[in-house]
Amino acid sequence: MPIPAPNLYPPFNIIRLSHVVFGVKDVAASRKFYVDILGLQVTDEDADTVYMRALEERGHHCMVLQKSDVSEVKSLSFKVFAEEELDKAEAWFTSKGHATEWVERPYQGRTLATVDNYGMPIEFYFQMDRLSPIHQKYELYHGVKPLRIDHFNCYSPSVDESVAFYNEIGFRVTEYTEDEESGKLWAAWTHRKGGVHDIAFTNGLGPRLHHTAFWVPTPLNIIDLCDLMATTGYVTNIERGPGRHGISNAFFLYILDPDGHRIEIYCSDYQTVDPDLEAIKWDLKDPQRQTLWGAPAPRSWFEHGSTFKGIAPQESTLAASPIIAP
Amino acid sequence: MPIPAPNLYPPFNIIRLSHVVFGVKDVAASRKFYVDILGLQVTDEDADTVYMRALEERGHHCMVLQKSDVSEVKSLSFKVFAEEELDKAEAWFTSKGHATEWVERPYQGRTLATVDNYGMPIEFYFQMDRLSPIHQKYELYHGVKPLRIDHFNCYSPSVDESVAFYNEIGFRVTEYTEDEESGKLWAAWTHRKGGVHDIAFTNGLGPRLHHTAFWVPTPLNIIDLCDLMATTGYVTNIERGPGRHGISNAFFLYILDPDGHRIEIYCSDYQTVDPDLEAIKWDLKDPQRQTLWGAPAPRSWFEHGSTFKGIAPQESTLAASPIIAP
Amino acid sequence: MPIPAPNLYPPFNIIRLSHVVFGVKDVAASRKFYVDILGLQVTDEDADTVYMRALEERGHHCMVLQKSDVSEVKSLSFKVFAEEELDKAEAWFTSKGHATEWVERPYQGRTLATVDNYGMPIEFYFQMDRLSPIHQKYELYHGVKPLRIDHFNCYSPSVDESVAFYNEIGFRVTEYTEDEESGKLWAAWTHRKGGVHDIAFTNGLGPRLHHTAFWVPTPLNIIDLCDLMATTGYVTNIERGPGRHGISNAFFLYILDPDGHRIEIYCSDYQTVDPDLEAIKWDLKDPQRQTLWGAPAPRSWFEHGSTFKGIAPQESTLAASPIIAP
Amino acid sequence: MPIPAPNLYPPFNIIRLSHVVFGVKDVAASRKFYVDILGLQVTDEDADTVYMRALEERGHHCMVLQKSDVSEVKSLSFKVFAEEELDKAEAWFTSKGHATEWVERPYQGRTLATVDNYGMPIEFYFQMDRLSPIHQKYELYHGVKPLRIDHFNCYSPSVDESVAFYNEIGFRVTEYTEDEESGKLWAAWTHRKGGVHDIAFTNGLGPRLHHTAFWVPTPLNIIDLCDLMATTGYVTNIERGPGRHGISNAFFLYILDPDGHRIEIYCSDYQTVDPDLEAIKWDLKDPQRQTLWGAPAPRSWFEHGSTFKGIAPQESTLAASPIIAP
Ligand SMILES: [Ca+2]
Ligand SMILES: [Fe+2]
Ligand SMILES: [Fe+2]
Ligand SMILES: [Fe+2]
Ligand SMILES: [Fe+2]
Repeated sequence: MPIPAPNLYPPFNIIRLSHVVFGVKDVAASRKFYVDILGLQVTDEDADTVYMRALEERGHHCMVLQKSDVSEVKSLSFKVFAEEELDKAEAWFTSKGHATEWVERPYQGRTLATVDNYGMPIEFYFQMDRLSPIHQKYELYHGVKPLRIDHFNCYSPSVDESVAFYNEIGFRVTEYTEDEESGKLWAAWTHRKGGVHDIAFTNGLGPRLHHTAFWVPTPLNIIDLCDLMATTGYVTNIERGPGRHGISNAFFLYILDPDGHRIEIYCSDYQTVDPDLEAIKWDLKDPQRQTLWGAPAPRSWFEHGSTFKGIAPQESTLAASPIIAP
Repeated sequence: MPIPAPNLYPPFNIIRLSHVVFGVKDVAASRKFYVDILGLQVTDEDADTVYMRALEERGHHCMVLQKSDVSEVKSLSFKVFAEEELDKAEAWFTSKGHATEWVERPYQGRTLATVDNYGMPIEFYFQMDRLSPIHQKYELYHGVKPLRIDHFNCYSPSVDESVAFYNEIGFRVTEYTEDEESGKLWAAWTHRKGGVHDIAFTNGLGPRLHHTAFWVPTPLNIIDLCDLMATTGYVTNIERGPGRHGISNAFFLYILDPDGHRIEIYCSDYQTVDPDLEAIKWDLKDPQRQTLWGAPAPRSWFEHGSTFKGIAPQESTLAASPIIAP
Repeated sequence: MPIPAPNLYPPFNIIRLSHVVFGVKDVAASRKFYVDILGLQVTDEDADTVYMRALEERGHHCMVLQKSDVSEVKSLSFKVFAEEELDKAEAWFTSKGHATEWVERPYQGRTLATVDNYGMPIEFYFQMDRLSPIHQKYELYHGVKPLRIDHFNCYSPSVDESVAFYNEIGFRVTEYTEDEESGKLWAAWTHRKGGVHDIAFTNGLGPRLHHTAFWVPTPLNIIDLCDLMATTGYVTNIERGPGRHGISNAFFLYILDPDGHRIEIYCSDYQTVDPDLEAIKWDLKDPQRQTLWGAPAPRSWFEHGSTFKGIAPQESTLAASPIIAP
Repeated sequence: MPIPAPNLYPPFNIIRLSHVVFGVKDVAASRKFYVDILGLQVTDEDADTVYMRALEERGHHCMVLQKSDVSEVKSLSFKVFAEEELDKAEAWFTSKGHATEWVERPYQGRTLATVDNYGMPIEFYFQMDRLSPIHQKYELYHGVKPLRIDHFNCYSPSVDESVAFYNEIGFRVTEYTEDEESGKLWAAWTHRKGGVHDIAFTNGLGPRLHHTAFWVPTPLNIIDLCDLMATTGYVTNIERGPGRHGISNAFFLYILDPDGHRIEIYCSDYQTVDPDLEAIKWDLKDPQRQTLWGAPAPRSWFEHGSTFKGIAPQESTLAASPIIAP
């Protein structure tokens, strides 16, 4: 099944992924991980909640930590181009039979909460409080020097169906992995903001969140983070990498936060603003697909993920197997 | 005079800068500079013309060298979002009284040639031959490892008027320098593709091209280029830098090609896709505006530029002075 | 068994490791690997032999490739401080009952061939042809930009005995791994030139050469090499890494040449010129010993090595086990 | 006047430069500069004194700040190979008519205080308190991540005479600048520890200390320091660079501390342990001597320096002029 033609004139205009809300069991432990080790900047907090932004961001938050009895993801959020796009979005989701709700979110204007084709909680807003730039306050830079949130990656029971859904609302496929035998998609990377992806999908028990990625300046910052984590009690939180992806050509590292939410540190992908950009196809059996340098990912990387609040994941229909480290 | 509000719904949809055509006196010397030293990839050539692309680009060319009796710039080109945007563009330029012409350009589809408010030759197209990706053919990477064309920077007799014109066709201001005394713009950076700029304007005898910039992976590639140029006969072609810009926060180097066309090597600016991004204002007298680290630019950097074919530059109306190295 | 006190006044003065001679089955294939991919510089060659140096070296060769029916190591060579040190060395080896011979080596002065305590062929010389500096001819830099040979690492049937021998001739231990149960050395790093090591020993079937290491400018050069090897047909020659060593704190990559001779790319260790430098002890069971970031080395890394010409390796007496990747 | 042949068997064995003692007017301001901005680690302090080490050093201090009414240098210190070398040193200096004194220095064993040929206060010791390694405590790394003290650079009234003196005690010349007209040395770099220099001399009013240099991991750390200093109130303390030296091939930055003591941040020179290393000669008029990339040093760099306690500097006898930035 080929990937669909991009929908260049979608029903409403999403400009980029915006933020994720994590339910975490120990706010202090998570805060230490994200703020002291990774280097995110706190923009507001109380005993149960921490709002953070990365160093070049002017929106109030790209990640929210909320005290929770279970480790889970509350929602994935996207920013739209204008206030009226929210109304178009509501109309579209309603017409497709998805429940919608206008919700109150601190530091945000009108916010539309709804679900995707698999019930994954997603939210849309246009207005978020804008903060003064800090990207030239270099004394604030530490840890991995995170510059901005880059993308989400989700497990999907059927990547073909997820791509069909997100393609319809304007996400354009940049790269994809096909299972040669079934002709089905194993994984796909789709974007709105002009990079390799805002959201990607990987075959597996889903919907679950596979990871959330942050953009950093250079591969050396990723090496610095490995050194720091390895010597501050976080060595077992390093799951995979560092290395170069075949797909996206980005330099990566995967780490796990105290609740097991997976974070990717990411840099060096490429610009994808051309509407006629040809998607790059990879074979599931190509060992350089995962890591250009040949090292397979560990089993946990294919199996572990974060559940979303209120939605039980379902088994994938595609039984094909990637190359897993022995 | 404040900067104008961004025109979020412009008359036609430009997605990014695309390429520049340089008239050069000695094609072999220029080819050596761009291909052997900088690392651009030749996509076609004959005795009088060289087409080149950077390493992550899939369009056929980002720079064209043409044998010429005079060192000059033939035109600056932009890619639009769809074929029909070209017709909208033609209608708009015609309605504004700018001459337009449909021209033949090798490897491109329909191409609209026109001029901006100061007679600067600009061209628009949608379709350009697409080439296979080479961004993972690492044996091709050398020189400064140029990944993509990033922006143009032009001298303008009135930056206020240039900004007014380009703002109307959708370029959004990200940063600007104001002369405190006159309240006029000294310089402005405007974008379409989601970085700090596709085209910028600097006060001075214009229209002239100040420089064309290429994006590279990291500051270390810029250091490598300095080392290479300094030891292969190009030491006097290094004009300014390397350093960190105050404006854009990018890491930069300015070099001059054999005809004196100025090239910037550039990396590490920030994402600007938010339509509500607040432009950052700088004072002309702030020494960190040019170089965050304090070093002023040399006089040549404020005075030298490339003329455009067929248009005599005019004096600027703003007499304010930047900080120039002694 | 503790490590011995350093012998600060050895019987003769070795200043550093110098070069290795590899027997290779296909000289052209090896030349391509070392010259085109790694970036060593050819200083002389004929159909059966290639002499190479790294970019900051002024001695004629740090590696010699010789056409051979078997893949093996001919000898490891060391440079002494002065001509007369050679005579002291001959006297010392003779007094210890090691066979010695004055041999002719192209581009070298008087050269003493002998063997170490396990029969490993080693050579000493003072004078080697000096070549003009090329470290500022930046157009020559490519591949991993190797700057100099850094160290040898050898399998030894008893690291305790190897350390005892090399310590007597002035090699000083900087770091070592002890098997807690037996109290025996599992591995040790010993230096003459002021870095972490000129030669190291690892428990195993020996004598065999585990690897030869080259120093490069920064970790980014190692990433560049991974990208290059992965896309030029050498992806399966990448054996381990990149990563940070616990021991030495260096950044590393292990690769295999076409004959299976292992090469380490290495940078960022520390200065060890102090005669009172305390050696750092590591526990064999510490997972961060091998890789600070926690990833264990693959089985091949503990088992594969190159035999030396004319000496059959013997089993190690120490049966302890390191942590091996599953 | 040619440079002298190296004295390979000096009267006593100096292994490396060790530390500098600065008289500073405001200890808190200097501490902030060296500890908070540069990243040195405090090993002891009271109201009037701060002892610091760099991150890979195990000796107690590489720099001492002492409260002083005047900004000056108290002494330059060197470590010798063994206790008995101190007695040999005392005998040698005494025989040459230099005053010597055994002084008490906290955290050091027996310490010999004396002066060089121009009265510059220098000290020698063997034993200094050894501290636990911190080079793998990555949470301590910040600022420019200084790894170790690298070298001193001093103004000398006659570089020829300074070289003659230091050569006699074993410092070996690695590179030098000659004034073509007079045939005299303009500058020379001399080493003991196997890098380009432990101490260098530059023609000028002397003896004065031109700068003290610290070794850092990569050029990117130097860029980080520029960014940090430029945005924390230290932009005017950046004097020259960053850039690549012609001489030494190192990557450099020169900064001034609150008292005007000049610090160089330095990396990437080369190994010089070969006793037969040929010194590299540079012409004073070669613009790439100072900066490989062609940019001349500012006037302050040739004129400003720190005086030594108790010794009035004298004019240089050589009137030749280097290339100074306009
Ligand atoms: Ca810090
Ligand atoms: Fe990802
Ligand atoms: Fe620019
Ligand atoms: Fe090694
Ligand atoms: Fe220096």
